[in-house]
Amino acid sequence: MAILVVGSIAYDSVRTPFGEVTEVLGGSASYFAVAASYFSPVRLVAAVGEDFKPEDHEVLRARGIDLQGLAREKGRTFRWSGEYGYNLNEARTLATHLNVFEHFRPRLPEAYRDADYVFLANIDPDLQHDILSQVKKPRLVALDTMNYWIENKPEALRRALAGVNLLIINDAEARQLTGEVTLVRAAARVFGWGPSTLVVKRGEYGVLMFTPHSRFAAPAYPLETIVDPTGAGDSFAGGFMGYLSGSGDLGDSAIRQAIVMGSVMASFNVEKFSLERLRTLSRSEIDDRYRAFKLLTHFEDL
Amino acid sequence: MAILVVGSIAYDSVRTPFGEVTEVLGGSASYFAVAASYFSPVRLVAAVGEDFKPEDHEVLRARGIDLQGLAREKGRTFRWSGEYGYNLNEARTLATHLNVFEHFRPRLPEAYRDADYVFLANIDPDLQHDILSQVKKPRLVALDTMNYWIENKPEALRRALAGVNLLIINDAEARQLTGEVTLVRAAARVFGWGPSTLVVKRGEYGVLMFTPHSRFAAPAYPLETIVDPTGAGDSFAGGFMGYLSGSGDLGDSAIRQAIVMGSVMASFNVEKFSLERLRTLSRSEIDDRYRAFKLLTHFEDL
Repeated sequence: MAILVVGSIAYDSVRTPFGEVTEVLGGSASYFAVAASYFSPVRLVAAVGEDFKPEDHEVLRARGIDLQGLAREKGRTFRWSGEYGYNLNEARTLATHLNVFEHFRPRLPEAYRDADYVFLANIDPDLQHDILSQVKKPRLVALDTMNYWIENKPEALRRALAGVNLLIINDAEARQLTGEVTLVRAAARVFGWGPSTLVVKRGEYGVLMFTPHSRFAAPAYPLETIVDPTGAGDSFAGGFMGYLSGSGDLGDSAIRQAIVMGSVMASFNVEKFSLERLRTLSRSEIDDRYRAFKLLTHFEDL
Repeated sequence: MAILVVGSIAYDSVRTPFGEVTEVLGGSASYFAVAASYFSPVRLVAAVGEDFKPEDHEVLRARGIDLQGLAREKGRTFRWSGEYGYNLNEARTLATHLNVFEHFRPRLPEAYRDADYVFLANIDPDLQHDILSQVKKPRLVALDTMNYWIENKPEALRRALAGVNLLIINDAEARQLTGEVTLVRAAARVFGWGPSTLVVKRGEYGVLMFTPHSRFAAPAYPLETIVDPTGAGDSFAGGFMGYLSGSGDLGDSAIRQAIVMGSVMASFNVEKFSLERLRTLSRSEIDDRYRAFKLLTHFEDL
């Protein structure tokens, strides 16, 4: 089944304790789409400027991603620059230039409207809501957001959430959005707004998933070196949704496997800058790391 | 087999977003011993003052803990007061009065010297080293420490570590002690100093265990309410060491189970202030929560 992702494509400049890159391919839609492409057809909606490089277009095309929905607008591509200290869980944003992303009004190509799986990456909740009105009858809609929208557009966000099955956010956002301290209570509150699944990303600490009937915890994979955490959350979402779409199964067992697969993709992503690691994986590398997660978390019954 | 714990007994005054208590029983040795007592005989070495209340002595005695090594000294019992904000992972210390703990020189009763399992709770590393010279031939020695000793007595700490099999610290301490950013590298460094196992406590995010041949990650149990995190680390260590001692097994599989059992005991501990929850558990409540950890972490192979 096909996944639709709507989000950003960016040129990122990133400094971490392990190096520095300037104007490399990034953005939520890029990370998501490349991660998901290992498991499922992916259709992408995003905007780039006139400066978008053919070699970056080729990175996405080479992964088989459907780029009919990639709009090339007058102006420059979205820029983000940030740095990470030794606490790699928190980015410090140095500059954001929205450029063509500022007036991004996502329109779905006709051929995209029957997508079964929809990922609304972190953009204006009014746009997320509008996209939902353009898709026909998706099996699963997942949404990501951030502190800025939680603070500045709470009503629009709640309106978008009403049409969403699955909310993917980090733990600080879950607490801010719900006003609850514990994630168990935060989940209960989210269930009252529409989503029946809350997936909480905790960076180097892994992921917690809540449904009204099930809870699942997956660690992050312990790596010897972490070069750049940028895109880890979207790589997770891509592996997660990609696996679900590829399997066609939305049962509890498939969702748990999908969370591990998302964690696998995020663990690869942080090993290099930009999409350098993520775009060159083989299926056997992916499966090996999935098995490594199994070893990492296995313990016997009493 | 019997466990020996050497640590503190304290009267704690604690404020959390969920309430406040004054001068309640606490201290590393109390939490450890009560948690371990569900699985194994426990022998305790600590000092209290003339003000130590008979009802608090009874809390420990009622759990079958051997109190021959509990020294009653002239003066007052150790006092600690602290508070937690909504980020329950970090305590803010308001006051520390060492009192009788200041001149604590642990002497093992003769009957304690053949202990098989030894837990050196967070005290002066010179004292930890001295205790090791008093035990005969332990099967497993575990040590906890803190930023204060890492900064102020690094050589003494390294000397103590040379006689230790297992280091139990939190992630900030692991990074500070080793100067490494990732825990994988921190573990490799610790292995060079003596311990062959590093257990990293990450509060609400769970635990990571490293040996030269194995890695294991366990989440913390997601709770609806967390009343007071004080003592969670020592309750973890107590459940962990208690389970190992009770099983008599030090293989990889037993260590993984023990880490989950430690996480079980920590999860109960934070549900109430002081030892109120920890001291009133039944074995079936403990086993039920162990099974809940299994459900929480289970996922299928590919």
